[in-house]
This record gives sequence, structure tokens and C-alpha cells, in this order.
Amino acid sequence: MSVDSRRPRVGIIGTGAIGGFYGLMLARAGYDVHFLLRSEFDTVAREGLQVKSAVHGELSLKPVQAYRSAAEMPSCDWLLVGTKSTGNAALGPIIRQAAAPNASVLLLQNGLAVEDQLRNVLPDSLHILGGLCFVCVNRVAPGVVAHEAFGAVSVGYHSGPAKDEASRMAVVEACAALFRTAGIDAPVMANLQQARWQKLVWNVPYNGLSALLQTSTGRLMADPDSQALIRSLMDEVVQGAEACGHSLPPGFAQHLFTVTESMPDYRPSMYHDLAERRPLELDAIYARPLAAALAAGFDMSRVRALYQALAFIDRGNHPASKE
Amino acid sequence: MSVDSRRPRVGIIGTGAIGGFYGLMLARAGYDVHFLLRSEFDTVAREGLQVKSAVHGELSLKPVQAYRSAAEMPSCDWLLVGTKSTGNAALGPIIRQAAAPNASVLLLQNGLAVEDQLRNVLPDSLHILGGLCFVCVNRVAPGVVAHEAFGAVSVGYHSGPAKDEASRMAVVEACAALFRTAGIDAPVMANLQQARWQKLVWNVPYNGLSALLQTSTGRLMADPDSQALIRSLMDEVVQGAEACGHSLPPGFAQHLFTVTESMPDYRPSMYHDLAERRPLELDAIYARPLAAALAAGFDMSRVRALYQALAFIDRGNHPASKE
Repeated sequence: MSVDSRRPRVGIIGTGAIGGFYGLMLARAGYDVHFLLRSEFDTVAREGLQVKSAVHGELSLKPVQAYRSAAEMPSCDWLLVGTKSTGNAALGPIIRQAAAPNASVLLLQNGLAVEDQLRNVLPDSLHILGGLCFVCVNRVAPGVVAHEAFGAVSVGYHSGPAKDEASRMAVVEACAALFRTAGIDAPVMANLQQARWQKLVWNVPYNGLSALLQTSTGRLMADPDSQALIRSLMDEVVQGAEACGHSLPPGFAQHLFTVTESMPDYRPSMYHDLAERRPLELDAIYARPLAAALAAGFDMSRVRALYQALAFIDRGNHPASKE
Repeated sequence: MSVDSRRPRVGIIGTGAIGGFYGLMLARAGYDVHFLLRSEFDTVAREGLQVKSAVHGELSLKPVQAYRSAAEMPSCDWLLVGTKSTGNAALGPIIRQAAAPNASVLLLQNGLAVEDQLRNVLPDSLHILGGLCFVCVNRVAPGVVAHEAFGAVSVGYHSGPAKDEASRMAVVEACAALFRTAGIDAPVMANLQQARWQKLVWNVPYNGLSALLQTSTGRLMADPDSQALIRSLMDEVVQGAEACGHSLPPGFAQHLFTVTESMPDYRPSMYHDLAERRPLELDAIYARPLAAALAAGFDMSRVRALYQALAFIDRGNHPASKE
């Protein structure tokens, strides 16, 4: 094996807000971290990465082991994928080039069934894990990430060569240890699908409404009508999860609502995606959960209305990239 | 009586797109029409009114019998109210000043229960009629109205001194005759409430979505997701009407959908209200129908979600005018 087992080599696929933040934290903890970049390669290669964190202060990493192409990267034991889920179909060749033979690929994305899509384009020898980021980060300039709050990554096993529960847990625990060494809370998820539904209880209302209404969590939480709309969307997602066999903890939606009330004012990623005319992550966050719940007999009708409004906006926002 | 019965005197309360269009048509048909204006008084008094009509060509009226205040107007037999329903609470004194003793007040507004609100502030001696305008008009400049399609006004009796069906019908028929003489189709509605629900089947989706998505009917009808959203909103309003005891004709929603597909591209009034930072007519078009349907046991959940999103936008659009 080409890799020193005491110092795992980590590849960051997509060095945006998520990839940049976690990659920098891991590099500062002593891991050998390699960053794949596209449009920001020149800036980051020259000036490094910065995280302006409300929690950790101003952090920087320079020089950065930066690459324009996955073919130039060394084989990595861990690949952290921080790209938008809208590009998952194209990830196969990139990950195959950057992955060591038994590498683990951690998908740091929102939504449902994102790992399934990746499984179809990766060899069976690679572990796929799902990671749910509970973090408020935004890319504010090339190579510069603002970290406003939180930071945890919940990790769970999706699929791959680990065939029994003990070996799956060993991979997940190793992944969690990677983050914990870097000072990042990393709970282990026994049930990845349930955890993804739990995350949707937040993402469905806040991502979509921040884009649709061109606003932030703080303003959404200060208005009685948007508050009521958020609660009804959350309730529908909880019912959708239940229809799919995932009973969420009692009071879970209320818990997220309260957490968001006390959060610093935040513009979720979909707000920024719309503003910067990137495709919205509507498949992962809306279409697949809607289809899964409907197949299980429950129509999330308000969620569907929100999805349809967002799909209309998305189609007009980047006409060239659609069918 | 101060009024020549062969040439009724008509007062237009609110000379915007609706009031300007119908008032000009009635004046050109020979009626003695008096226009109440506010911000556009100077322009209209000096330059008259113009209707640029795709149906009738370029029409103008000059001079215009224009007034800054209802106190200056002569007593009118007919008062046509074309103001926004958001200002109905303040209409009492204005209408009392302009109305002949047994005048009829025709409320040319969308939404539910708009006449109830007016009834509370008017003497019992005045007839109140409801009018539903099936017309695509927009005010494009002070005193200038663009008329893009259609034109009919359906009229029905709401309340007042006519206590039996025959005398109610006599008032409504006289009102319809007024319009027909001016070349305007004016069906008589036996059931005003049902007709208001029928109009809501159009107004609820198209007014709200044009404002929320900052778009026109043509673009809404060209996108599969907004099409589906429109259909589901229409279906909910039809169910809401049924819950309230109004069975709409079979296929009514589909009929409106088809009519709108073949309509010229149009931006409904709520689009313009938002763009020009006027209060949105959310009470009449959303809150009251929602409350009526809920009281009858049916929650129009998608309509409610749309209403909540619009209420959030409306509150931010003119912060000074809200509580």
C-alpha cells in the first residue's frame, strides 16, 4: 500500500465551502490533504485557503496541495466529496483516478439517494459513506470560506466491500476518528437513510424558502407567515419519513425550529446557488424525497408545491444547462 | 330626482386600469361619467384618458369629468368601484358623498366577501352589487390603460333595499344593460358567491404565482412544473368551493386552464402591485377563501402555502404600511 497508515491521505473533491472548510481543518490537524479545484485553482495555488471562522478565528493553509485534475492527484485513502449533487453523474472517472484501491468515499451532500447515484459509477472495491454536515459555511471569495456556526459531520456506511456490520462500523469509526482528531464532532449514524430524512426536515424548508423568497433564516424566523409555512413543511417531511419507515424522534421538527431560531442569520446554499446562477439541488432535496414518500403512499403536497415553484425558477435561471 | 333617468350618471371610484377602462367605455357610449382620481388627477384633467386596446383600437376621452375629492362629485346613480380591495375599509365616506339616495354600488374587485366589508360602512338605502371582470387590462402610464384581451363584467346582487328576487333582478339587469349599451358583455349572475369562487379558481394560481415567481401567464403556462402547480391549486380551490356549498360546473378548472393557454401573455394585477410596492390583495383572494373553506371543513393546504409565501413577501414590500 502506498499510504502511511498513521497519516492517511485525504483527497478533497470539490473545494467549495464544505470541501474547503473540512479539508483545511484536516490539513491543519496534520493529515496529508490534497485539494481538487477548478475555477479557483490559480488563486488557491498562489494564495492558499482561508477560513474566517466565528468559532475558530481566522485560519489559513498555505501552501495548499492543489490540483487542476484528478489524474494528477496521488492515490487517496479518503475522498471527501463536497461538490454539488447536481454533478454526481460525472463523478465516476474523477473518483476512480484519485482513489487508492480500497479507499473510502464520503459524500458530504444533502438530500436523498445521492449515494445510490454514485454507487452506479464506482467500482465495488470502494466504500461509500454518507456524511451529513451540520455547519453554516459560505464561500465568500475564491479560496475564502466564512464559517458562521456549528461544524459536526454525522457519518454512516452506505455500501461497498464491508459486508458485515462489524467491518462497516470499523470503516465508519475510522472516518469519524479522522474528523475528531481535527476537532470536529462526528457522530456515527447507525441508519444513514433515517439520518438523511432527518436532515431533510431542515433542508426542505430552509433551502427552498431562502431561494424562493430571496431571504435568510433570520428573516424567515421573524415573520409569522413564513414561520407557519416552515412548520407545515417540516411536518410534511416528518410524515414522509414515517411513510418510508423512518420514525423520527418525538419533537424533532420543533427541535430544529428552535435551533434555527437561535442560529446566527444564515443564507443556505440554495440561496447562493440561485444568486450565482448554479443549478439548484432540487433532485436530491425535493424530487427524490417526494418520489420516495409517494411510492410509500404519502404525498407531501406542500413540499411538492415548493418544489414546483423552485423548478420553474431553476429552469429560468440557467436555461442553457437544461434539456 | 336630480338625475335624468334616460342618461344615468355614473361615478368611477378609483380610476386605475379597471375603473379607467370601463369608465371610458361608458362615457364613449353616452353616459354621464365622473371620475374620482388621486395621484393622476392633474394628468387626466389636462390630457384625458386613453385606452390602447388590442380589441377596440386606440380610444380616448377628453375632456374628462375628473375630481380630486368625492365631495366635489355630483350625486351618481351608479358607482363603479375599481380601487384595490385592500382599501375597502376607507370607502364608506367616499361612496356616501358621491352616491344618489338610492344609488347602486358595483364592486369591481376580486376575492371573497369584499362586499360584506363595504356593506358595514354604507347606509342600507344603497344597493351593493358585485362585478367580476374578465378582462386583461393594465395601467401603463398616468391616464393610459392597455387593454389586451376580453372585457366582460358578470354582475350579481349582494345586498340592499331590493328585498325580493324580482326587484333584485331589476337592479342587476339595469346594471347589465348599462354595460351592454357600451358594447361590453355583461352576464347576470344568479349566485354571486359561487361566481366569486369560480373567479378565484383563476385568481388564486395566476395572481399569486405571477407575483411570487415574478413572471407572466405565458411563462407559467410554458413550464411543466408551474403548469402542474397551477392545476393543483385550481383543484384545491374547486374543492374549497364545494366545501362551501358551491358545486362548480364539471371541467371548470380545465376550461380556465385552456382559456389561459390561448390568452395573450399577461401579467396579472398582483404582479404589478408587487412591482410597484402596493399592498397585495391577499385578504380578499387568499385569507378569506382559506378561512371560509377551513370553516367548512376543508384546508386548502397548497393555497395556504402560497398565501404564506406571499404574505412574507408583502410584509417586506411595504413595511411602513403594516402593523
